[in-house]
Amino acid sequence: MHEGNRTEISTLGEFGLIKHLTQDIKPVNPETKYGVGDDAAVLEFPNQQVLVTTDLLMEGVHFDLVYTPLKHLGYKSAMVNLSDIYAMNGIPKQITISLAVSKRFCIEDLEDFYNGVKLACQLHNVDIVGGDTTSSVTGLAISITCIGVADKDKVVYRNGAKDTDIICVSGDLGAAYMGLQLMEREKAVFQGEKEVQPDFAGKEYLLERFLKPEARRDIVEALAAAGIKPTAMMDISDGLSSELMHICSQSNTGCRVYEERIPIDYQTAVMAEEFNMNLSTCALNGGEDYELLFTVPLTAHDKVSEMKDVKVIGYITKPELGCALITRDGNELELKAQGWNPLKE
Amino acid sequence: MHEGNRTEISTLGEFGLIKHLTQDIKPVNPETKYGVGDDAAVLEFPNQQVLVTTDLLMEGVHFDLVYTPLKHLGYKSAMVNLSDIYAMNGIPKQITISLAVSKRFCIEDLEDFYNGVKLACQLHNVDIVGGDTTSSVTGLAISITCIGVADKDKVVYRNGAKDTDIICVSGDLGAAYMGLQLMEREKAVFQGEKEVQPDFAGKEYLLERFLKPEARRDIVEALAAAGIKPTAMMDISDGLSSELMHICSQSNTGCRVYEERIPIDYQTAVMAEEFNMNLSTCALNGGEDYELLFTVPLTAHDKVSEMKDVKVIGYITKPELGCALITRDGNELELKAQGWNPLKE
Repeated sequence: MHEGNRTEISTLGEFGLIKHLTQDIKPVNPETKYGVGDDAAVLEFPNQQVLVTTDLLMEGVHFDLVYTPLKHLGYKSAMVNLSDIYAMNGIPKQITISLAVSKRFCIEDLEDFYNGVKLACQLHNVDIVGGDTTSSVTGLAISITCIGVADKDKVVYRNGAKDTDIICVSGDLGAAYMGLQLMEREKAVFQGEKEVQPDFAGKEYLLERFLKPEARRDIVEALAAAGIKPTAMMDISDGLSSELMHICSQSNTGCRVYEERIPIDYQTAVMAEEFNMNLSTCALNGGEDYELLFTVPLTAHDKVSEMKDVKVIGYITKPELGCALITRDGNELELKAQGWNPLKE
Repeated sequence: MHEGNRTEISTLGEFGLIKHLTQDIKPVNPETKYGVGDDAAVLEFPNQQVLVTTDLLMEGVHFDLVYTPLKHLGYKSAMVNLSDIYAMNGIPKQITISLAVSKRFCIEDLEDFYNGVKLACQLHNVDIVGGDTTSSVTGLAISITCIGVADKDKVVYRNGAKDTDIICVSGDLGAAYMGLQLMEREKAVFQGEKEVQPDFAGKEYLLERFLKPEARRDIVEALAAAGIKPTAMMDISDGLSSELMHICSQSNTGCRVYEERIPIDYQTAVMAEEFNMNLSTCALNGGEDYELLFTVPLTAHDKVSEMKDVKVIGYITKPELGCALITRDGNELELKAQGWNPLKE
């Protein structure tokens, strides 16, 4: 929350506030005909398919403001929606943001949040075309809708994986989850003793992965440049296991993933050791990596093997073989979706 | 909230719940290529402009579950978004719904809500193409995004009103606000004495207008059939005064509205009398009517005068004349936007 000057939201009112937060927004995409300021935004996509994704994020469930600066929260809220568009092999073009805020938030807080959203949008050439700012009785609620495009024959669904396809993943996994664990630990320590400052030295990468995820536009562009259209693709928000099982279930296939091939950063490994957690479990079930998981035909093996920051981790099988992890010692363990489930007891 | 059988949401989990609520949804529009079930919905609009509107509705701010059945809430949440698309002179095509629910809600509650959304969508040929169901620490949060289309030269903005245009409004005003007042009164009575049952006899129209608003597709179709393209249009969600001032401010004009011409239903008048409220104030500033307010060139006067359920209430002036109400006794009163403002102190 903002420290220093504090301007109450009531001084501007609803329309004044929206105007204040959006006045410097200038659309950059020719597809954006009209943005903020009317009953609806007006867009035009004559030759492409339109992709629409939406997210509702609630304080206390999806984020904790004790360790999430509002600018980071705005950045991340936008980024995870851009990631959904990339996961369809599309390019995000527009975004709408609605916020419900309680009285403990001031205008400077919302400016911070919007600055984070704007930064994410600038990096990905996305226009903010609408939204709403209203009040909430208790916590902060964030609703984001992202609109993207893809050529008609380029959209990639979850349901196109085929037996013998190879499974690829971008970046590395488990770091965001470790960042979250670290934040939770330091929060507990910090709340216990006021004079203790959190110590994050040598763990910056974990924090960055948790607080400032990056949607993988570069991978979508690299795939296009290499002439590869994945047979199935998803972004990893709930954990590799959970997403793999979605792809296999929707494609009616099984899969084999090699434990030793799952990409894991050094800091993630150190942290798992420190927390006495199983590293592979963290990488398989830790969420919020926002890396891309995709399958390509076996014939594309050489091409994807050469791609920067992409790793082949396994292959698709017939459905009757089920989904399994091949451990370092050669055993097969059935994959379970233990990913994050906000509706669990 | 649901009475009788109660199935806890945790028995299904996030993906099971979404599947359960959306399994019977079949897209009816050819523009909907892929709906619920992937990272994003896939739509196609080769020859039209795309309209996007979004709303975030919070329990305790935008609705009170004490007197709002969940099915009505679902219906209304969808309807107010369809209304925004009609207000652009467009036709709604797709909708996404996200809900954040606390543990006091059961699966039957969400079924009720979805049934309301589905009913509204069926009536307007709109496809449910996505959404999310997640948890909330406290109340219910509803996020809806609606996507519509309009021919390129048919989109109507707020900023096109011109001096001498005439101002029209559909239906009647103030009834939804009176319905809300009535509900609030009965809630207070009801909470005081457990044995008192609310008495709504003769006031059904007010309740219906508040609980079950109807988006005016018929007016958009009638305008098209009559060959009229409004110069400016909005739907009345925050009150006639407030919306008129938006049109005048964005069009750089003034306006004159005749008090005696504002359409008001008999039940609204009776109720205002009972509450000892000024009837015109209710009609000017009461929100949630979801009627259409639009301006047309003077040359279209005869055509709009013949339109069913449309009334001419005034005219647009040069900006220096300001926005004013001409009272029954011929005085001019400056219009003030006293409409609903969720961010007011």
